[in-house]
This record gives sequence, structure tokens and C-alpha cells, in this order.
Amino acid sequence: MSNLVDLETVAPFDVWGEAVRARRIEGEQVTFAVVELAPNATIPEHRHPQEQLGMVITGTMRFRIDNEVRELGPGGTWRILSNRPHEATAGPDGAVVIDAFSPIRSDWNFELLEPRPTVWPVDNEGDAR
Amino acid sequence: MSNLVDLETVAPFDVWGEAVRARRIEGEQVTFAVVELAPNATIPEHRHPQEQLGMVITGTMRFRIDNEVRELGPGGTWRILSNRPHEATAGPDGAVVIDAFSPIRSDWNFELLEPRPTVWPVDNEGDAR
Repeated sequence: MSNLVDLETVAPFDVWGEAVRARRIEGEQVTFAVVELAPNATIPEHRHPQEQLGMVITGTMRFRIDNEVRELGPGGTWRILSNRPHEATAGPDGAVVIDAFSPIRSDWNFELLEPRPTVWPVDNEGDAR
Repeated sequence: MSNLVDLETVAPFDVWGEAVRARRIEGEQVTFAVVELAPNATIPEHRHPQEQLGMVITGTMRFRIDNEVRELGPGGTWRILSNRPHEATAGPDGAVVIDAFSPIRSDWNFELLEPRPTVWPVDNEGDAR
């Protein structure tokens, strides 16, 4: 198995319906996920034992952890300790975000979909990719 | 302490001289770092007990893990298990990358610098931030 892979070659899966689609790179201690959220996609309040740190890459998100709420754009980050309740809603243009979990998301047994183009990065001919 | 912060408000520090500058969000199990590499910046071969998964956001990187070498652009990922030797060199335009480590980088006792604008995201007036 290669340890250096392009995100676009990774099979996606639907985490919260098709409005919240992810790809993941998994280690032994970390699940690294890139998540594409459709416009106004909602992730209802939930919690999990895995710690979750992440950041917006493109678009906007409204995020709540416990009683703290913020609107986040690119570079906006979250830090969700184990079992803290959190929820999120994508803005009107959707969002692409990174999430790093530890321990790994061994509970993520979603059906893998066919590889398809990523929302981010956009594949423009002649770019650095 | 807020658990929802903008990257540009986080104090940076130099990891491998000023050509490799990082900001970090730290949990109890994960260190989430955003690293800015100057053009052609080199990270010499090293290894650490922390697992390290990451991805290029902007720019290009030449990455080696054990005997595997690849050129990576945006969306290019790495998966470095505990204590695996790795090295990297930024391309001619530099790079901004994400790194997620677990356990946390408790060995990172670098001097914190004053907050300053991020290379990515670029702060354009009127944008989503």
C-alpha cells in the first residue's frame, strides 16, 4: 500500500447522507478525513470518544462545541475533546473541511463509492497537480 | 480557552529554521499543525514516535517515506507510521500543508513568535473570513 496518495484517487463515502461526503487516509492512531459538505448541509449534534481537530479549507461553516458557537471560513479551526457534543452547518456555498481523529474511526463502516473528482482541489489542466 | 479559533490569530513558530514555520492547535491526543514552507525549503530525514498524516493545501512538495518518493500538489497526502524515516522538500513556489500527529508533539517547545498574517488563507477584504 502506498503511503503517498492523491486525494482524488481515494474512494469517497457518505457520512451524513450524500450532503456530507468524505475521503479518508487511515493510520494506526489517526483517521485523516477530507469532508465535502453541500450548501446548507447539516450535521446534527453528536459525540464520539475520538478526539476531533479540524479546519475549513473552502467555504464557510457554523460550528457549535458545547455552548460555544462560531462562523468559520477558510483557516477556521475546531478542537473537540473526547465525547464533547458538537454540531455544524455548512454555509450557502457549502464547504470542504479537514478532520483529524484519534483514535481512528473504526466505527466508520460506510459503503465506499466509486472514485470521482474532488470538490477541492479542482483539477485544472496545467496546474501543479 | 476557545475551541473555535482562526488560524491567523495563532502564534507561529519555526520548526526547521524560518523556512518551515508552523501554527498548531493542540488537543489531548492530536496536534493539528498548519505548516508554511518557503520555496525549496528542506526538511531533512528524521523520525519520531508520533504518527503523522497530512496533506498539501497549496504549492508542491517532494516527499519521501522509507523508500517511497512522490511529488505532491494540493490534495496530495502522506501517512507516516510511528518512527518511519521521512524527508521533504518544498517546490519552487513553496507550500502550505496540514500535519496531524498523535500522540501530541509534546517535544515541540519552540519559541512562539508574534501573530502575523498567514500565507494561506490570504486575507482579502470582503471575503468569507
